[in-house]
Amino acid sequence: MLLRAKDLGEWKIIDIFHKNFEEAPDLLVPFGDDVSVVDLGKDALAAIKTDMLVASTDVPPGMTDWQVGRKAVVGTISDFAAKGVEPKAVLVSLGIPAEYSKISLEALAKGVNAGAREYGAFVLGGDTNESRDLVIAVMLLGATRKGQITLRSTAKPNDIVAVTGPFGKTAAGLQCLVDKTVRIRRKLEAELLEALYMPKARLNEGLTLSKRGLTTSIIDSSDGLAWSLHELSKSSRKGFIVDKLPTTESVKEYAKMSNIKLEDLILYGGEEYELVMTVNQEKWEEAKEAIEQVGGKLIRIGRTTRERGVRYKRGHDTILIESRGWEHFKSGDQNKETLARRFR
Amino acid sequence: MLLRAKDLGEWKIIDIFHKNFEEAPDLLVPFGDDVSVVDLGKDALAAIKTDMLVASTDVPPGMTDWQVGRKAVVGTISDFAAKGVEPKAVLVSLGIPAEYSKISLEALAKGVNAGAREYGAFVLGGDTNESRDLVIAVMLLGATRKGQITLRSTAKPNDIVAVTGPFGKTAAGLQCLVDKTVRIRRKLEAELLEALYMPKARLNEGLTLSKRGLTTSIIDSSDGLAWSLHELSKSSRKGFIVDKLPTTESVKEYAKMSNIKLEDLILYGGEEYELVMTVNQEKWEEAKEAIEQVGGKLIRIGRTTRERGVRYKRGHDTILIESRGWEHFKSGDQNKETLARRFR
Repeated sequence: MLLRAKDLGEWKIIDIFHKNFEEAPDLLVPFGDDVSVVDLGKDALAAIKTDMLVASTDVPPGMTDWQVGRKAVVGTISDFAAKGVEPKAVLVSLGIPAEYSKISLEALAKGVNAGAREYGAFVLGGDTNESRDLVIAVMLLGATRKGQITLRSTAKPNDIVAVTGPFGKTAAGLQCLVDKTVRIRRKLEAELLEALYMPKARLNEGLTLSKRGLTTSIIDSSDGLAWSLHELSKSSRKGFIVDKLPTTESVKEYAKMSNIKLEDLILYGGEEYELVMTVNQEKWEEAKEAIEQVGGKLIRIGRTTRERGVRYKRGHDTILIESRGWEHFKSGDQNKETLARRFR
Repeated sequence: MLLRAKDLGEWKIIDIFHKNFEEAPDLLVPFGDDVSVVDLGKDALAAIKTDMLVASTDVPPGMTDWQVGRKAVVGTISDFAAKGVEPKAVLVSLGIPAEYSKISLEALAKGVNAGAREYGAFVLGGDTNESRDLVIAVMLLGATRKGQITLRSTAKPNDIVAVTGPFGKTAAGLQCLVDKTVRIRRKLEAELLEALYMPKARLNEGLTLSKRGLTTSIIDSSDGLAWSLHELSKSSRKGFIVDKLPTTESVKEYAKMSNIKLEDLILYGGEEYELVMTVNQEKWEEAKEAIEQVGGKLIRIGRTTRERGVRYKRGHDTILIESRGWEHFKSGDQNKETLARRFR
């Protein structure tokens, strides 16, 4: 049988690429972690990351061109936030449809610039091409130091599992756009859509955690909370027990008014840019305070165990958290169940 | 009137982006030169570059998936070659059509890897997305040093203008695919198609010239020889007089058998990766020898003048070389006259 991209799905495609890329000697950060690190000599380490936004699958209806440009950059900066790297330079490769208007181009350019400037980076260059989809490939560069980056793979047993904020807003926001029959208070709906259109990267939090060596493992949550927990669990070969699923009143109200379980909105969303991490218990108070000092918060949601598996303890029940989140090419089946499904 | 991307053309679109990007302070290399350079502190300078390949406009018929993957990387490395930067790391953001086969994906991955390894770099990571076009955005990282990079803007009067090889093969190769009625000897046709499908970046030449500070200005020729000369002329505010248009027997034969002027094949092609540079006369012999020592050659094609303009002196005639080359979004009119036109 001739297999095609849509039969394989994103993770198997990534696997094909990974297998066919000759591994660099002395790799400082393993393939697949949030950033790549390159030794430039003289103790200088460069961190780099690329992320592509394709409008037809990654842009929800109602998002402005400015917001699209900004989001393409902010989503990439979230990976730098997870690894505590300050973004210095942004490059942007664009595929632009022939019919795209000058007004949209200007708004897109201003949005790309705004996304970079919001986090202290500058756009230094790029490349422009004609394509059928609007495609924005962002590349980030920053400096890091030896021992500065916390991997996904180094969680220890009995660490505290923590996140930098509530979950479920983008999933609920997307549902607001899909299902117009669900009515929630306008102010709360506006809050959900704001989360969707104007995501924030937790850069200050990530830089603080990294500078002070406060985490044992860390990742961003761009593919959803469940997926991030599974990724840390798999990489670190540890289990995770979650006993709290932090969310907001707006998400709770949305869940109540719709037929969607609150836990699903929180766990299986995506395009959220909170950080998900493990912290040694002895460093917990220090970590919490450090994050509060930079205007953020750290929410304990569970702990790690020697025994593998990712579970949610709800009262006396313990349920398995599934390993799913958004996966490109899988919109047909699997992603129907993923709330943060994209639009085509 | 509502202007669209196709009305603006690539250069005006780049202009819109440039205008809307806040300029970084202490910019080490100006926006629009072949690479961007970022100070990472402690005297470490990182050079970065991004380039996007869109299959529907950038891939000629008959090119294999492996060659497409390889070319996406090699085209980007050519910019590093021009600025004398050794590529260390490659990131690749992919947009893949749902119907793309597993066999093609594997070949593409191997091609990307081969393009990097051929020039000593490793692929460290990337991003995979679903899109209607096959899109490959390549990002390169390398180390450079203060004063190492020769810009486009620093040619002096009475410099020698030189190139690293003959021109016209890719333009003639593309024409072979477009116009099947032109017959040239099979061996020569194979040579032209080889240039098209398996481009080479002049990395050794570029590294040597940079290390020894042998050029006063330099650029690669990915948009054609005429465009590169105009770009150096415009950036440096100097004139160029060309008295030699180096090419091959195969291109000469193709010109003879077709209705296309030899000069047009040489000047207005593109997707060629020779280096185009200016060299101080006193350094000419040293430059020529240095390039020969790394297995390349340096061909004198003219000189620079105080008086602006880019001209070709042919016997007693002097004709103006036009400022054109491939421009995305302009396939309708302008690119009809550009030989290296892409396929859709």
